[in-house]
Order: sequence, then C-alpha cells, then structure tokens
Amino acid sequence: MSDFVHQRHKPPTSLERPRELVLVCAPLRSNINLSRIVRTASCCGVSRLITCGPSKIDPKIARVAADDFSIEKHRSLPPVLKALRDEGYQLVGLEQTTNSQSLHGFSFVHKTAIVIGNERLGLTEDALALLDHVVEIPVYGLPFSYNVSTATTMALYEYCRQFPIG
Amino acid sequence: MSDFVHQRHKPPTSLERPRELVLVCAPLRSNINLSRIVRTASCCGVSRLITCGPSKIDPKIARVAADDFSIEKHRSLPPVLKALRDEGYQLVGLEQTTNSQSLHGFSFVHKTAIVIGNERLGLTEDALALLDHVVEIPVYGLPFSYNVSTATTMALYEYCRQFPIG
Repeated sequence: MSDFVHQRHKPPTSLERPRELVLVCAPLRSNINLSRIVRTASCCGVSRLITCGPSKIDPKIARVAADDFSIEKHRSLPPVLKALRDEGYQLVGLEQTTNSQSLHGFSFVHKTAIVIGNERLGLTEDALALLDHVVEIPVYGLPFSYNVSTATTMALYEYCRQFPIG
Repeated sequence: MSDFVHQRHKPPTSLERPRELVLVCAPLRSNINLSRIVRTASCCGVSRLITCGPSKIDPKIARVAADDFSIEKHRSLPPVLKALRDEGYQLVGLEQTTNSQSLHGFSFVHKTAIVIGNERLGLTEDALALLDHVVEIPVYGLPFSYNVSTATTMALYEYCRQFPIG
C-alpha cells in the first residue's frame, strides 16, 4: 500500500485575513496569456485584478466567471498606478531594469500591487517611474525569457509563499 | 529620471554547478501544456526532461529546439521512475494526496526528479507508489486547481529559489 493516495479536490486553504494583493496588467497582446493569468490569480486568492487596454477573457481558459472575481478594466496603466499608490499599495513591477531585485530574495509587504508589462514591450517608462520596486526572475537557459503568464505565476507564488494564510 | 531603466535581454544567471534536476511528465492530454512546460524548464536550467506517451512539442511555444535541450521520450512512467531512483534521484511528485507536503515548506535535495501527472487523472497509483515525497500547492480560490503547466512552473521556481546558482 502506497503512502500516497489521491485526494483530489481537497478543500482550499483558508485565509486568516483577506489578501491585500492586487494584480495589475498593462495592455497585453494575447488574450490567452491574460486568461491564464486570471485563472492563476483567482486560485491564489488575489482580491482585485486590473487589466488595461482592450482585452477579452476566455472563460474556458480562465475557468472563473466575472461574478466570482473582481476584474476592473481601465484604458491605461499610469493613472491606475497613481490611484493604487494613493490607496497605500506598494507597487512592485516585474521587469528587467537597472536597480531591479531578484524575486528569490524580495520581501513583499502585505498590501502590494504586482504590475505586469506587455509581452514584447514590458513596462513603459512612465509606468516604471511610478513603481516602488522592480523585481526580476533569474533565467538560466534558452530562450532566456519566461512567458508573461509564467513570470506572473512565479511572482504570485512567491507572494503566497510569504503570506500562506493571508 | 526613473531609478528603473529597461535592461531587456540581460545575460542569464550562471550556475556554479550543473543542475541535477530532472523533470518527468506523465502522458499529458495537451501538447500546448507540454510545450509550455518545456520552455519554462529550459529557462530554469533543467538538465533533462522526460516525457511519456505520445506527445508533440510545438517549437513556437517551447521556443527551444531539440538540439538545445535534452528531451527523452518513453512509453510509460513507472519504468522511468525506477531507473531514476536507481540513479540516485529523489522522486518528488506534484499531486494532492494523503501525506503530501506543502510546496511552501518543502526542502528539495539537489538531485531531484519532479514528477508531473496528467491534467485530468493526475499521477496513477503505480507511479505514486514509487515516489519519495509528494508536494502540493496551496490553492485559495476558484477554480480550485492550477493548470498543469502553472503548477509545474511553481515547483520549478521553488527548486531554483532553493538552488539559485545550482
């Protein structure tokens, strides 16, 4: 008899306090990437997701309905970042920049907005200028860049690891 | 002037010793999921990837060619796991089971094979019986399950975080 017996559909982990984690996406090229990000963010208990620009979420990929999960749509990123800053969120971008820190060693604060850039262009200069921190993820092999939803997954995982029960 | 100026295509992080990390995939339903996993694994510096069952890797998604990265194909999972065990790898499955540990607190050993199950069926009983450990990833919200490539991304990230330079 194996020590390990399937227990699929275990109850989810309960948070002792609500997450104060907002995920903010610059206008993305791919609705597939955005839809994948929505699913992962919802699974991670992200409380608010903000998308910018025209975008359509594919419910077959996202597997979460608009009623289940708050998704806000805005035209452009910088005004969103200014508003979140005024609400007291620490703004953490995911990008390769000067003065960026490795995600491996970065300590998140509880009230954080993680800011994701476009697949090709990354975060624009006016968005970067509004951030408190930039984190990047070490890459070791070809093609030397993570897909945007993969990188977002790693950042969300790291936040959840640091705040496993909220 | 912002503190953060784009530095796209930074040189990759160098490993001080080769990774002894093998990624093993049970037969997957979706070649898209497998191809996404290949890209992420290669970026993480995984040294060997083993797939089981019929599968096609889409080079547009994987963005890594067969020459760049060793991909071994096998018919079924249990003989692969036995061989890796004989080579001294610790076998760590990703699944929800009795006696599974949270990925958040799990300490990998250097010489590890991470074992990924099918999207719907997970890891079969005969595969589970061969594992040293099973890890699972806390899930907090709908749809209460991570996509297989998302879960794999989190496990690879956690290994890299524990062995950032090999």
